Amino acid sequence: MTDEHPSVPAISRSRLEALYDAVFSIAMTILVLELKVPDLVDRRSVHELGRALAQHAPTFASYLLSFAMLGLFWYRHNWQYRHYRAITRGMLALHFVQLAAAAFFPFCAALLGRYPTNGLAQVVYIGCVLVYAWASLATWVIATRSGSLRMETGEAEALAVRNRLLRWCLVVSTAFAAYLGILLTR
Amino acid sequence: MTDEHPSVPAISRSRLEALYDAVFSIAMTILVLELKVPDLVDRRSVHELGRALAQHAPTFASYLLSFAMLGLFWYRHNWQYRHYRAITRGMLALHFVQLAAAAFFPFCAALLGRYPTNGLAQVVYIGCVLVYAWASLATWVIATRSGSLRMETGEAEALAVRNRLLRWCLVVSTAFAAYLGILLTR
Amino acid sequence: MTDEHPSVPAISRSRLEALYDAVFSIAMTILVLELKVPDLVDRRSVHELGRALAQHAPTFASYLLSFAMLGLFWYRHNWQYRHYRAITRGMLALHFVQLAAAAFFPFCAALLGRYPTNGLAQVVYIGCVLVYAWASLATWVIATRSGSLRMETGEAEALAVRNRLLRWCLVVSTAFAAYLGILLTR
Amino acid sequence: MTDEHPSVPAISRSRLEALYDAVFSIAMTILVLELKVPDLVDRRSVHELGRALAQHAPTFASYLLSFAMLGLFWYRHNWQYRHYRAITRGMLALHFVQLAAAAFFPFCAALLGRYPTNGLAQVVYIGCVLVYAWASLATWVIATRSGSLRMETGEAEALAVRNRLLRWCLVVSTAFAAYLGILLTR
Repeated sequence: MTDEHPSVPAISRSRLEALYDAVFSIAMTILVLELKVPDLVDRRSVHELGRALAQHAPTFASYLLSFAMLGLFWYRHNWQYRHYRAITRGMLALHFVQLAAAAFFPFCAALLGRYPTNGLAQVVYIGCVLVYAWASLATWVIATRSGSLRMETGEAEALAVRNRLLRWCLVVSTAFAAYLGILLTR
Repeated sequence: MTDEHPSVPAISRSRLEALYDAVFSIAMTILVLELKVPDLVDRRSVHELGRALAQHAPTFASYLLSFAMLGLFWYRHNWQYRHYRAITRGMLALHFVQLAAAAFFPFCAALLGRYPTNGLAQVVYIGCVLVYAWASLATWVIATRSGSLRMETGEAEALAVRNRLLRWCLVVSTAFAAYLGILLTR
Repeated sequence: MTDEHPSVPAISRSRLEALYDAVFSIAMTILVLELKVPDLVDRRSVHELGRALAQHAPTFASYLLSFAMLGLFWYRHNWQYRHYRAITRGMLALHFVQLAAAAFFPFCAALLGRYPTNGLAQVVYIGCVLVYAWASLATWVIATRSGSLRMETGEAEALAVRNRLLRWCLVVSTAFAAYLGILLTR
Repeated sequence: MTDEHPSVPAISRSRLEALYDAVFSIAMTILVLELKVPDLVDRRSVHELGRALAQHAPTFASYLLSFAMLGLFWYRHNWQYRHYRAITRGMLALHFVQLAAAAFFPFCAALLGRYPTNGLAQVVYIGCVLVYAWASLATWVIATRSGSLRMETGEAEALAVRNRLLRWCLVVSTAFAAYLGILLTR
């Protein structure tokens, strides 16, 4: 890329990748801990269990949505990450912001699952995605500017990735603003 | 295999394998979080603790069963996975379905452990296995058709694996149908 | 070793090692989930928090003991594992027994931490160690007999490892028998 | 380094690194389990949810602080670890002390988040950091003395790392002493 004197690598690529994968796999799996087995009066009653589970339908929907979201984040990160040849301190710091948002996701999922019609729960959920999205974009921009991309990644491709990330950030930001607007004008 | 122009790989084999192994190991280990230490009136009473643990015997049985099931899924996936030389988008999506089912397993185990005689709990448990089994079969079929199997895997072997997966799907589907039938005709 | 025609490997060494390490690291880390923050009447009272934490001293002791035990198991397994050149089906099945015991450990730790003077809690705790110890020994014996040890591991060394494992099994079995005896004769 | 006959390695570098990374990633991710979804009377009330979340603001602050601390520990360990060419028994034992402190961190974070103004909660939190810091320094000192550093690590660099660790230990010890002093003189 443009810069010929990249910053000193802060950490090995493979070790950060391992931490990233581990945090995502744990976050995806502990989503399930928010699903609670209901208390039944009649332990054998199919109808009572059915009603209890149906009542928690939003929690199950939130589980599936959040699992898919984390899977998508992980998949997209994979494409972004393969372009890096070194991880600078700034990129590492922003990766920790991404990881903190991902690790925070199970709480957002539980909140939305329990109060799906509460505007604040929706804003917190989208807000967490928002932080993750902008941190991803910032990581990419810093990586490009510090010359941390692989030689094989041309300027056109770097720009294309940036634009894709930017579009994503704008979509999420718009959704966030819309939900926040609804919340504040109520 | 048959197709000479496989789709572009969506993700590296090793990274998906790492995610898969991590989700399975976490799911197998957090099964234990559903086992709760009982509250005792007399903290030193062996009889009271014995009665309390005996009352939760189905939960312990469900723990062991579910641990063995996840171990078996993991072992079988290992045999399937070694035939892939690339992971396409479709295979990745179906892997996420498998992972979502595996990550959901601790909830099913807790539900069955608490209400072992409740028909709906049984149906949910087998239903989770059903989703996992069909997603495994679908992954294999897509892998075969998209030419994502290794060169060394002959057509006969590909067919043998498919048939083994199909038999498993049929057994699980039959069990699911039987339990669902009992549930609905009650 | 003695057998020149070992069984077909059931799984790659590295993948089972990864699963083993993951289950142990998760079990060691979720031990902490059994430590509960106490409820205080006066949130600022140092004395009240001190009394509450002191009351849970056995839980903290059980946490430290169990963390050290799991660390020791993991360390010993490491020494055993490096002698294997292949993992047969029998060895894999016994590894799952070891993993099930390790994953069950956080429950035993919580039980002992809550009821340290309850004889049954002590027996359950030692019983879990007992299962792990005998499964380790059985894995070694099967590995030796099926010719799954590395060439470099001589018969004398194989015997020495077996004897060390056997001594450990006997110590744990004696402790188990003693605690069980106390329990039954009370 | 100085010693030409280092102790026998107790464990492979890569396997301890994998355990270390796993424990840290799990500890960082299960911090979130201490954040509880509040119970609301009116499920749709934005104001009620806002008040409930605001009341738990210290818990969220503790989450962020603890995530950043664990991230920092992990990052620093990474720099220390790359100098080791072998892990002796003493270094392994001290690594387990570090891991026990890291795995204990979610409890400290929950305690501080719930009782941020309680002097004892503050002392416990800093005490956990203290144990981790001194164990890190001790590991480095033992590694240097047992000749377990890489050839490329000169004496000057070994001294510089030791001094950095020592400064960190002294800062944490001072903070610990100050908070303990306030606690005892109240």
